[in-house]
Amino acid sequence: MPQTILTLPTRGQGLYEFTDQAEAFVSASGREEGLLTIFVRHTSCSLLIQENADPDVRTDLLAFFHRLVPPTSDPEMGWIVHRAEGPDDMPAHIKAALTQVSIGIPVARGRLMLGTWQGLYLFEHRDRPHRREIVLHFST
Amino acid sequence: MPQTILTLPTRGQGLYEFTDQAEAFVSASGREEGLLTIFVRHTSCSLLIQENADPDVRTDLLAFFHRLVPPTSDPEMGWIVHRAEGPDDMPAHIKAALTQVSIGIPVARGRLMLGTWQGLYLFEHRDRPHRREIVLHFST
Amino acid sequence: MPQTILTLPTRGQGLYEFTDQAEAFVSASGREEGLLTIFVRHTSCSLLIQENADPDVRTDLLAFFHRLVPPTSDPEMGWIVHRAEGPDDMPAHIKAALTQVSIGIPVARGRLMLGTWQGLYLFEHRDRPHRREIVLHFST
Repeated sequence: MPQTILTLPTRGQGLYEFTDQAEAFVSASGREEGLLTIFVRHTSCSLLIQENADPDVRTDLLAFFHRLVPPTSDPEMGWIVHRAEGPDDMPAHIKAALTQVSIGIPVARGRLMLGTWQGLYLFEHRDRPHRREIVLHFST
Repeated sequence: MPQTILTLPTRGQGLYEFTDQAEAFVSASGREEGLLTIFVRHTSCSLLIQENADPDVRTDLLAFFHRLVPPTSDPEMGWIVHRAEGPDDMPAHIKAALTQVSIGIPVARGRLMLGTWQGLYLFEHRDRPHRREIVLHFST
Repeated sequence: MPQTILTLPTRGQGLYEFTDQAEAFVSASGREEGLLTIFVRHTSCSLLIQENADPDVRTDLLAFFHRLVPPTSDPEMGWIVHRAEGPDDMPAHIKAALTQVSIGIPVARGRLMLGTWQGLYLFEHRDRPHRREIVLHFST
């Protein structure tokens, strides 16, 4: 049951792809079939499988979440209580709650069974640089 | 470790139930206990476990997502960049990001451990007909 | 493959932590490595991994979901059809659809691989008291 922690540096809000690292981890295990679980160890970033073709899709996704949950410096967010860690912090927790902390991906013939256009992304919701930990767990 | 791809034809936005097909797959495996992972291989539809009793619940769910993420032909969505694939395309990616691409369901005594009112649905976010692939993966 | 059903009593909308019960279940299994899947058997409550430090984060999360999906007694929700089970019922289904029904958490050295600030919560969306069932499933 191979398991590792992947550390991804982030530089502000955005989608950071790690499909290749996940494929390499599965490949290195030498096993052909199983289930890869990806799990992010934070509450202000999250995981997303999304289109890896047109980058405009990622731009629009970020814009949607920014409009749905603006920074707490926006007057519309005057009701927010948790403000000690900056205007991007509580929105980060909310965006993480609206997306996923854990995703299971079946593996066959040594490959993730992703669709043609699917990529794995870390969805960073904080402005400042962070080092984010993702657990990769391959069960058979 | 049985694994299969279930293909579901869709005819426009809506919730398409596949609980019976998932139960049949688990049953055919001959194993009594384990974990069924369902994974959808697309970025413009998603998965949902929801009430399978009153169909009004599904009507209201669809209406909520339509109001939260209107078609890009709606003036409110003027900020959307990715428009090449039609007014339902970028909203489909956003709705998929807000729901789930993968769900794990424990199995006991050869049955999915669903609650009384829970059904498994493919949540189609596109208007035109599609053939959607869902991986069913039963690990023990 | 240990498996159990955890029953949590709830007393209205809120986040109910069960990290300790999940840790105890993993610990009692005597196994050091694997994958814990948590699965909630209802469609009007859900699961959330969120910050277990400042309680204001939970307050703000509840407030956000209340603002995004108000009770159906709110004039803004006049379009809702499913009203037979009270003003908190259809919003509960919608909030459940926006969060998670199932989460997989890797286990190493007999412990859940949660980050420092992560706690496991049942997210209750109904007003009246309920007894909620969560399946804990530990696969190796």
